[in-house]
Formats: sequence, C-alpha cells, structure tokens
Amino acid sequence: LPEWDESCPFCPGNEAQTPNELLRLPALETLPWQVRVVPNRFPALSLDGDIMMKEEGRLLRKRPGVGVHEVIIETPSHNIPMALMTYEQVESVLIAYQERYKALREDRRLKFITIFKNHGWASGTSLVHSHSQLVATPVAATYYRQKLDVAMDYYDDVGRCLYCDLITEELERAERIVAETEEFVLLHPYASRVPWESWIIPKGHWASFGQFPTALLHHLAMILRDTLFCLYKCLDNPAFNYTIETSTTELEEDPSYHWHLRILPRLTTIAGFEIGSGMYINIQMPEDTAELMRKKACSFPGDQCPTLKRATS
Amino acid sequence: LPEWDESCPFCPGNEAQTPNELLRLPALETLPWQVRVVPNRFPALSLDGDIMMKEEGRLLRKRPGVGVHEVIIETPSHNIPMALMTYEQVESVLIAYQERYKALREDRRLKFITIFKNHGWASGTSLVHSHSQLVATPVAATYYRQKLDVAMDYYDDVGRCLYCDLITEELERAERIVAETEEFVLLHPYASRVPWESWIIPKGHWASFGQFPTALLHHLAMILRDTLFCLYKCLDNPAFNYTIETSTTELEEDPSYHWHLRILPRLTTIAGFEIGSGMYINIQMPEDTAELMRKKACSFPGDQCPTLKRATS
Repeated sequence: LPEWDESCPFCPGNEAQTPNELLRLPALETLPWQVRVVPNRFPALSLDGDIMMKEEGRLLRKRPGVGVHEVIIETPSHNIPMALMTYEQVESVLIAYQERYKALREDRRLKFITIFKNHGWASGTSLVHSHSQLVATPVAATYYRQKLDVAMDYYDDVGRCLYCDLITEELERAERIVAETEEFVLLHPYASRVPWESWIIPKGHWASFGQFPTALLHHLAMILRDTLFCLYKCLDNPAFNYTIETSTTELEEDPSYHWHLRILPRLTTIAGFEIGSGMYINIQMPEDTAELMRKKACSFPGDQCPTLKRATS
Repeated sequence: LPEWDESCPFCPGNEAQTPNELLRLPALETLPWQVRVVPNRFPALSLDGDIMMKEEGRLLRKRPGVGVHEVIIETPSHNIPMALMTYEQVESVLIAYQERYKALREDRRLKFITIFKNHGWASGTSLVHSHSQLVATPVAATYYRQKLDVAMDYYDDVGRCLYCDLITEELERAERIVAETEEFVLLHPYASRVPWESWIIPKGHWASFGQFPTALLHHLAMILRDTLFCLYKCLDNPAFNYTIETSTTELEEDPSYHWHLRILPRLTTIAGFEIGSGMYINIQMPEDTAELMRKKACSFPGDQCPTLKRATS
C-alpha cells in the first residue's frame, strides 16, 4: 500500500470528506494530526427519535435506531496497521477511545458503548486505512447481558470477581498465559471460541473501560501493540476483530464485571454447525497457540516486542 | 463444474474413500445410488469416551468430545446444487436426514442433533459436491437452550406455542410471508439476523424434526427446493447455511417448541460490532426481500418454482 492515497477519505488532505470532526489529537513532529474521530458516513444509528419500544401487532416490537456510530482514524498514514505503529500512536488511539466513551456516557439515553476494530478483508472491513469504530446504543443485547449475568451470579455466590479469580488461576497454571506485565495479562482463553483468540485483561479491577485510569493507557498501548505485532508475525498479517468488552454505562462501579480487550483472528469461517447449535469447533488448542506466541516473541531480534519478550523470558 | 470429478470423494466410483457407509438410498433409473450417509472423515466428535465433566482447577471444566459427525452426500452428481435438484432427490435427502436422526436418538447419550448444510465458499464449506452434515452431541449449548427457554416461558405465560402464534400473526399481516402451502409457511422473519434470512415453518405443531411425519416430507422437499431455487435466481447462486432447528431428543413432545428450517444467505460479513455486542446490523428489511422473492417467483416461466408461484399468485 502507498503511504498516502488520494482516494482514501481517511488520508490527510481529504478531511473535508469526513466532516463534523468530533475529536482531533494534534500533530506530533511532521504529521498533520495524530488521530481524528468523525461520525460514520453510513451510520447504523442516529440520535434522532424516541427510544421507547412500539408494539407491532401482538408479538412484535420495535424501537427506532437511536444511537451513535463514530469512526476513529488511527493514523494519518494510509499504510500502517496498528501492529506496526509506535507505542505513542497506539496510546493516542486509546486516549481517543476513552475521551469519546466519556463524552458519550454523559448522554443518559446511551447505556452501552462498544468500541471495536476490524482489520483485513475477512474481518468485514471495507477500508484499508487503519481505523476503529464506536457504537453507542440505548440497550445491551441479550447476548451481552448474559455475560454480565454470569459474572454477577458468580459474585453473588463467591463474593469475588470472576475475572479476578480467573487471572489468579491462569497465572498459577501458566499454560495459557502468553505474557504478564505490571498492569496486564495476555492469555489465550480456555475453550477459546476461535484459534489464536487473545485476551488482554487488566490485573486491577475496573468494570468499565471508562473507569480505567488514563495515566495507565500507555501500559495497554504497549501490550496491545506487541500482541498485534506478534500475531502479525506468527500468522502473516491475519484479519482480525477486536472488541473492548466493558460494563454498561450504568454499572461502571460493578464489583462483578471486569473489562478486557478481546482479539479474534479470522482464520476460519463460522459455518452451519456453529450457526445452528451455538457451539464452536476450534481446531487449535489455546495451550498450543499460547506456547507458539511465547516462542515467537523470544525469537524477535533486539528490542522488538519487548512486552512479550520480557514477560516470557 | 463437471458432472463427475475423479478427485471428489463424494463422486460415484470413489465410495472406498468414504468407508463405513451408514445409509444408502438405492438407485433410481441410471444412477448408482441416490443418497449416501457416511462418517465425516475429519470428525469433530467421536463416540469413545466418558460424557461426564472433569474439573480442571477451581474454575474450568471439560468433557471429552463425545458425539457423532456424519456427512449426507445428497446426490451422485458432482455439479448439481440442491436448488436445481428434482423434488424426488430433495425428498430422498430429507428421508436420509430423518432416518439418521431416528437412529441416533436411540443412543441415550445423544441429546441434541443438529442437521445443517453449508453451500458455497463463504458458507465455510470446503467441498463443492452437494452435501449436508449431522452432528449429535450429549448437550445443547446455552445459546440453544435460550431459544427453547424463551418458547417455554411464552407457553407457560400464554398457554400456546410461540411459533404457532407467530405463524397466525404473520399470515394475518402478510408482509413477510413469501409463500404458504398446505403444510408450510415460508417467511422472512421480523428483525432478521441477516439479509434474505428465510424460515420454512410447518403449520402443524411438532417440536422435533424427528416427529414430523415422513409421509409429509415431500411437502417439505417441494417448498425447500423452490425456496433455494428462488434464492439462486434472486441472488445469483448465493453462499448460504441452513440448519434444522429442532428440540432436544428429550423434549420431542414439547408443546412449546416448534421445529423449523432456517436459511441464512452469506451476503455480508459478521464484523466487530456483531461479535462484540451480540446485535446484528441488517441492511435489508425482511418486508422488502419477501416482496422481491414473491415478485421473482411470479416471473418464472411455465411451471418453474410452482410452490412459491401458486402460493403468491
């Protein structure tokens, strides 16, 4: 890919194609800007309309698509994926995520804020210039509520956070741990949904990404960038999605949930069995892929991927 | 595609590549056989092992992959998709589904039997020769239990089957109905997960596909083949998955659940938002796609696609 593409709406000089800028992190050195956040040009949702449900006959209900759909343009460079960015650049992206999260939770209609990234054609993205998205909605889906409910049931039963206990147990067993830093654990979860699924979990307990101290975002930038770099090298620049799995905006102080960042490489295709049954066939054990990542990190020359190398050596 | 492919394990003459045949429907006219059912050569599960869960530390549990994974070879012809088969051929496939279902439910370890089909590269299939698969497991996934639970809650509350009520309501409103036959309704469900999602629902109440009268399978064969034919023509041979959504083997007499066949064309890619939030963005309204299918069916010359044409004219 070229460093700059005349026809790319995210490239410098084409800012007029993405109007109503919501946030701009200013330039470092020779760059025109560092990160821009703009409304999605083809938004799935808009802030107009009533959030109340309407009955449609006896069984069916609908509500207008009230919400927000934004794009985080992660870099002015057309051809730099996050795996190859500097730590400072990734930190700026994370700062932009958190600033937008905090701005949007002020709108009391918005209860659930999903921040995610699609990288590579198989991930569902249509633009190659590195970017993430944010969607804020008045509801969490039943699927997501279930995750929260499982954690809350555990808390009610045991009196501790499920994720805090999981981190302790995984660190003891060490089989699925890829790296451990001062603030984070990188692991391949037990019974992973897809091969090479990778979770970055903060060691400290915060239910919401919005509560995570901004001053610690450089720790997240380091482990996130190094994780993506290692996946890039292990799997030859794989397509992936990542999502920040966080509490609803109403439960940010929740003692039972624990935000984390979940990376799902798109190496296989979900087919009829998964769709029909809700069970997932994973052809690679997380214990094996965690070991492959640890070994790969140790093989990098010099000071490449220091977070993973230091943690695993 | 050629009619016969020397290197295809499903083509006649290569039967030795798929040994331990479980079922063969005998030849009609000049065909060597009509349908064959064989074990999957790369099975996700096997019948060896204990189905009990084992603890792994304090939080994690596992069980051996006990179950059955079979392949239904739908036709001896290498190049005939189900959309272009004769009704008799499709009926034979359905008879094979049901025979295998009934044989497997006799094994009391197997509680959940998923029958599904992947068609086209984007559906996750690796072999082009038309085939379906069957997976039988000792458990239903939480995802599927939820479907059953929602229907059971409705039954407890209202005293009627949710799906029976849905059929009545949809037929009254008529917006999402594509076709209605003596035994079946074809509709695009309200708030469809994906564009052109199509459900074939029996009008009569049976919780389980295993309880559906074999004598009525030719009705299903007609509407299934015509639905796939119409999708083939509307969307230029789209990739799709279909699944037979049926009760667990223990609840085949359940008054609250109602089996149906669900077709999901693979026109779009699930991306980070769907993965993270559990909500699905559908860019085409089911009311619009149902109308497109009705119109398309009426445009077919002669007696093509009679089930849909008769029902909609």
